[in-house]
Amino acid sequence: MTVGEAQDFSRFFSAEAKARKSSPLKTCIHLFQDPNITFLGGGLPLSKYFPWDNLKVESPLPPFKNGIGHPPSGDAEDTCLVHVRRDETTKAGDTIDVPLSRALQYGHSQGQPEVLSFVREHTGLVHDMKYSDWDVMATTGNTGAWESTLRIFCEKGDTILTEQHTFSSSIYAAEAQGINVFPVPLDDNGIIPERLEYILDNWNPEAKKPKLLYTIPTGQNPTGSSLSDDRKAEIYRIAQKHDFLILEDEPYYFLQMDKYEQDVSKRKTTTFDSHADFIASLTKSFISLDTEGRVIRADSFSKVLGPGTRLGWIVASKQIVSTYVRLHEMTIQNPSGFSQSIVGGTLNRWGQDGYLDWLIGLRVEYNEKRDVAIDALHKYLPETPIFHVNPPIAGMFFTISIDTSKHPEFASKYLSKPELVEQAIYEKMIESGVLIVPGAWFKADGDTQPPQPAENKKELDPTRIFFRGTFAAVPLDKLQEGIKKVGVALKQEFQL
Amino acid sequence: MTVGEAQDFSRFFSAEAKARKSSPLKTCIHLFQDPNITFLGGGLPLSKYFPWDNLKVESPLPPFKNGIGHPPSGDAEDTCLVHVRRDETTKAGDTIDVPLSRALQYGHSQGQPEVLSFVREHTGLVHDMKYSDWDVMATTGNTGAWESTLRIFCEKGDTILTEQHTFSSSIYAAEAQGINVFPVPLDDNGIIPERLEYILDNWNPEAKKPKLLYTIPTGQNPTGSSLSDDRKAEIYRIAQKHDFLILEDEPYYFLQMDKYEQDVSKRKTTTFDSHADFIASLTKSFISLDTEGRVIRADSFSKVLGPGTRLGWIVASKQIVSTYVRLHEMTIQNPSGFSQSIVGGTLNRWGQDGYLDWLIGLRVEYNEKRDVAIDALHKYLPETPIFHVNPPIAGMFFTISIDTSKHPEFASKYLSKPELVEQAIYEKMIESGVLIVPGAWFKADGDTQPPQPAENKKELDPTRIFFRGTFAAVPLDKLQEGIKKVGVALKQEFQL
Repeated sequence: MTVGEAQDFSRFFSAEAKARKSSPLKTCIHLFQDPNITFLGGGLPLSKYFPWDNLKVESPLPPFKNGIGHPPSGDAEDTCLVHVRRDETTKAGDTIDVPLSRALQYGHSQGQPEVLSFVREHTGLVHDMKYSDWDVMATTGNTGAWESTLRIFCEKGDTILTEQHTFSSSIYAAEAQGINVFPVPLDDNGIIPERLEYILDNWNPEAKKPKLLYTIPTGQNPTGSSLSDDRKAEIYRIAQKHDFLILEDEPYYFLQMDKYEQDVSKRKTTTFDSHADFIASLTKSFISLDTEGRVIRADSFSKVLGPGTRLGWIVASKQIVSTYVRLHEMTIQNPSGFSQSIVGGTLNRWGQDGYLDWLIGLRVEYNEKRDVAIDALHKYLPETPIFHVNPPIAGMFFTISIDTSKHPEFASKYLSKPELVEQAIYEKMIESGVLIVPGAWFKADGDTQPPQPAENKKELDPTRIFFRGTFAAVPLDKLQEGIKKVGVALKQEFQL
Repeated sequence: MTVGEAQDFSRFFSAEAKARKSSPLKTCIHLFQDPNITFLGGGLPLSKYFPWDNLKVESPLPPFKNGIGHPPSGDAEDTCLVHVRRDETTKAGDTIDVPLSRALQYGHSQGQPEVLSFVREHTGLVHDMKYSDWDVMATTGNTGAWESTLRIFCEKGDTILTEQHTFSSSIYAAEAQGINVFPVPLDDNGIIPERLEYILDNWNPEAKKPKLLYTIPTGQNPTGSSLSDDRKAEIYRIAQKHDFLILEDEPYYFLQMDKYEQDVSKRKTTTFDSHADFIASLTKSFISLDTEGRVIRADSFSKVLGPGTRLGWIVASKQIVSTYVRLHEMTIQNPSGFSQSIVGGTLNRWGQDGYLDWLIGLRVEYNEKRDVAIDALHKYLPETPIFHVNPPIAGMFFTISIDTSKHPEFASKYLSKPELVEQAIYEKMIESGVLIVPGAWFKADGDTQPPQPAENKKELDPTRIFFRGTFAAVPLDKLQEGIKKVGVALKQEFQL
């Protein structure tokens, strides 16, 4: 298939992004490497004054035969040693590293070439891009990428669209900037396209239309829901029809699992004959549907390698990527050089195949964790339609939705207010020695009034609340123990 | 001396900073470590799935007998080995490390305790703080800290004060946000307090007064000037009188040197009998004068250890620090865990004394580099009052100021416009194989009209321009070679 170029979306840039000048120093920093120029231009310390001479880290070796949670022994047969030297070297096999003299120097706001080339190749393998002039840039993770996105596209007084419940920091970051966060209803399968379209078709013609949809399509936080490929195609069509951008925040993308099977005898974890089969099993990303450069994808190593790497990346059209680069020159400059040397050195040694092996190994672990969690919920939650569990097919989270109107003291003690029951349950849980998180913490409740017909404000099910739990953060025995406590607490609370 | 508490400066917070909610998830993340709670609360991956098992870096060992540029041999006598393990350990001598299981996990937005405690102790040693409730927090360096400062204190339409020439990225970051950058005249010794006071005494009563002075007091970028202790005290008094905050951006603070001595026979580099003597030799910081919590100090490891660490810190009142923390929770989250493990592990092994030894070693190197640069300027610059060099006592930069009106074609070719001569010289330099940077790149030229009497707009010397060079970025032979090229080019350009 011949693919075309991305469209010009500069009409969406904020006044700030349009006004931002590039540092003139960046226009000459390439001369630092020019052998014909004596570079007295920039305040770059000599790399001989960087104290660190070399760096070594050990990780397991693909294909991770003993599972990804098995630490390397230090022996060559199961250990991948990354040894990063101070200086560039042309010795074969060393060119995959970001040497410390470069990693610890200024420059490369977009990210170090060795990291970018790995991520670019990975993106090409996984996402089947539909336009030609896309690129990637390194970020400090998706939290920072989202903040940058708001600064680049939004003004005070703008409205953005998000899932009705979404990552609270993402909401608060927008709200602090004076941006209205307009909630889009979602169900067990994510955003409901018909509702989204209805909202936009009936948008108040006097109000500014939203520029941007923020979505966590896979293993959504907090609901655990995942958007189907069909819904994504519908949402992309609506984005074209109503002309807005889509930011897909995808930290959990590679925590996709098999569908949950309650009958243990029928349960099996999919194995893959090839990496191509694994890739084919993955949900289609928004960016892989995108023919115009309307989608920005925020990816991260936080959930698949470690949050503290503070390393992620954006995939978008070159025009949009360069706008992020200009912003980053004045904020983070670039992610930590140590992180780039270590993550880049590891991934380039593992190779694309090795990284896919890691992700497949991670899938096995999360599949098991999800199964243990949902099994325990079935075992320990009181059997009643008051409680509903939606077994997730991706991510770290399960939710327990609760019909508060069935609480014996709903009217008497809680004045028929679901949020008061929610708070009481939260406190009861902590008292019982388990922490799960109220759905209210994640509610996008921006102003829907001016543009919105009253009908769309209706909650799907107004007396239902939910709690978010995670099966990621603790080992399996703790997980079962925790969910048992949840069950006991809910039984007591509802006098069952 | 009994010291009091910082004042409440929340009146200076931006609407955004005031509106910013703290993530509710942060209110329960401490329960992650609580043995009585089964934590199903947050999306934290298990640390056993972090691929890196351990990390080793080597640096030289204090007191750096062979100089700081001498790489460690790997032997115990001259090598400091930082070996960071995956897990916490209580084994004596290991408690100074940030273990990978914590460094690579979520949490600790303010910075890892081991890093903060080192930086806190260092700050106490160097700055003689005058109020009790100050604190530190980790940043990704001063570029990011400045961006955060603008977001926390400034609104679109606000005015801030800066040196008339200052770091261009700092200007552009403010301007992109719609903040007016009001230039304060400076001379060879930094901001001129009398001019600053005159400006503020004569501020247009109908215009908003500036909330903030941004200054690079030591080895100022780009002028190379350093503010004297007396001037700092005056500026602090003016800040109290006119009620504004001071952001001291101090990446070059520890690149202080001896006064330049042209006569080589009289030249000697100060040696210090003790670390106390070294500390006593340092210029007083604004924060050490601050009795109220009116000063925010941005410090960084970029110039003393390496820019790519992307690790710095802020010193300010606890009230102000906590506001930065709330912002960082929604932007960077925290600096890279690898950076914190490596820098923290190194510094905690070196100890406060070892770090001061490093800084003293750095002083020796920069002293020599500065001397070589200024000697070469004296040797190669045509001898004429057209050119003026101010030997710096700190930082990385020298400047050559040039009276453009003395250019033989000033009127005929350049229409009596200094900026045209400046551009021509810049191009001539590159053609001659040397890069130095036009002062115009650093000019704060925000709107001074509304609040400002015409008199203050006068340039000190309107036909003079300057170029910034650095003696940091190249070895000594290259430095001499480069300055020779500068001399030749200027001689040709001015037909001398």
